[in-house]
Amino acid sequence: MNNDIKLIESALYDYIPKGLTYEKALVDSIAYSLKAGGKRIRPILTLEFSRLCGGDDKSALPYACALEMIHTYSLIHDDLPCMDNDDMRRGKPSNHKVYGEDIALLAGDALQSLAFETMSCKETVEASSAQASVRCINILSSYCGTAGMVGGQVIDLENENKTADLDSVTVCNIKKTGALIKAACEMGCVSAGADEEKILAAGKFGENIGIAFQIVDDILDVTSSDEELGKPVGSDEENHKSTYVSLLGIDECKKRVDKLTAEAIECLNVFDGDITALKELSINLSNRKN
Amino acid sequence: MNNDIKLIESALYDYIPKGLTYEKALVDSIAYSLKAGGKRIRPILTLEFSRLCGGDDKSALPYACALEMIHTYSLIHDDLPCMDNDDMRRGKPSNHKVYGEDIALLAGDALQSLAFETMSCKETVEASSAQASVRCINILSSYCGTAGMVGGQVIDLENENKTADLDSVTVCNIKKTGALIKAACEMGCVSAGADEEKILAAGKFGENIGIAFQIVDDILDVTSSDEELGKPVGSDEENHKSTYVSLLGIDECKKRVDKLTAEAIECLNVFDGDITALKELSINLSNRKN
Repeated sequence: MNNDIKLIESALYDYIPKGLTYEKALVDSIAYSLKAGGKRIRPILTLEFSRLCGGDDKSALPYACALEMIHTYSLIHDDLPCMDNDDMRRGKPSNHKVYGEDIALLAGDALQSLAFETMSCKETVEASSAQASVRCINILSSYCGTAGMVGGQVIDLENENKTADLDSVTVCNIKKTGALIKAACEMGCVSAGADEEKILAAGKFGENIGIAFQIVDDILDVTSSDEELGKPVGSDEENHKSTYVSLLGIDECKKRVDKLTAEAIECLNVFDGDITALKELSINLSNRKN
Repeated sequence: MNNDIKLIESALYDYIPKGLTYEKALVDSIAYSLKAGGKRIRPILTLEFSRLCGGDDKSALPYACALEMIHTYSLIHDDLPCMDNDDMRRGKPSNHKVYGEDIALLAGDALQSLAFETMSCKETVEASSAQASVRCINILSSYCGTAGMVGGQVIDLENENKTADLDSVTVCNIKKTGALIKAACEMGCVSAGADEEKILAAGKFGENIGIAFQIVDDILDVTSSDEELGKPVGSDEENHKSTYVSLLGIDECKKRVDKLTAEAIECLNVFDGDITALKELSINLSNRKN
């Protein structure tokens, strides 16, 4: 897993724009957040599904990096004062605390563009194909927009300061967190030229893992410490936000995480390759401490 | 020209997301800004260059709409309090004054995603080709990111409250305004399957028109009225911003607009088709009053 993180980060940092004279603050701000660490779950899932479908890492890496760029842009915008107003992220000052709100806003915007530039450039198309490139772009753009991640963030905002029902919290989680994780799994298969049955199974795996991931996040917001998590805990309660934990309690949440993880692992049965790595990853994610 | 605007707006409004239960505020906010009018210059340029290269409107329209989505997202983000803090846009309250800063931020983010979703969807690929789709996505993503529009906005921010030199103001204009107009012209050719010589000439035309467009904007900020322009005039002076006008004076600016327009029209010589519409458009843009 550590080797994969090295592989992903090396490719990711190579995409940071170079050679610009007047835009130093913007490039620094982009690099600051891309290099802030994190679990790199989404790009790892892309690589693993590509391998499972017989793809090589070179074809999958641009799509893996694009996912991390979209994830990073969403964190920068999420931390802004008009959104969650978080001063810390991954144990460091959030982007706008270092570069100002204007540059942070624009760095997020530029990172979204960079994701699509990365997936559509000549090298990416040559390493996979124009068909794979267009399909991955369509998956990522639809899963990160109104019907996906951004839509989920809006539901999240609207659920603040009121008691939301389980249905809207579930839809929120599927979109806010699940969509990008689902995209990661599907894109790994597409980059390797896999058939529709496999793309579908990967998407189902991703959806299950994604919801479980968000429930674990909600649990950790209650049970972890600021140091362990790298950001302030208790923010959901402070924002009077309805979560799985506030609606169902911690024990029921842990049961759901185990059930979703088991269902995710079952989706892997349609693949012929070695599913050990993805099985382990699923279990580790359900037991994570940060 | 009015028929083209109708054609573009009809296609554009069809792309507004439908059937979402919990995301009403987001969808309304997106629709509000997409429907706020404007000259629709960029999509018109895409249609015109497609026609000039023998393409049909159906192939070009998705790319034309994507351009207007990117332009609209940039205006929403540009008006935010942490950026230009403009309360009015096109004679109406700006997006965040109606929907709040959080929804406006997310509407901009979702519009950027929607642009790439529009260019990569099945119908778009079927109407042109996977190759045209990937190429247009690569043009638009690179011209709207760090090396293009967003980079230009950063230079613009950094030029506030100081006397910038003509070089940085020029680079700013080429990127902030020129890049998207250049993209519009190139994408029209690409969607029609034109050769590289034509794509290059269209790009050069767009760059010239784009710089001229920004100089006219700077002139109107000094010579127009709030009513005529649909937004407050005098904002550049208020922000102590160096512009072509503050650096060169209005007379020299008008001369440059005429020269750039003439150079743009010369770029059209490589095309075999009827260049009347593009010639007229160039001249009208140089003489515009808002």
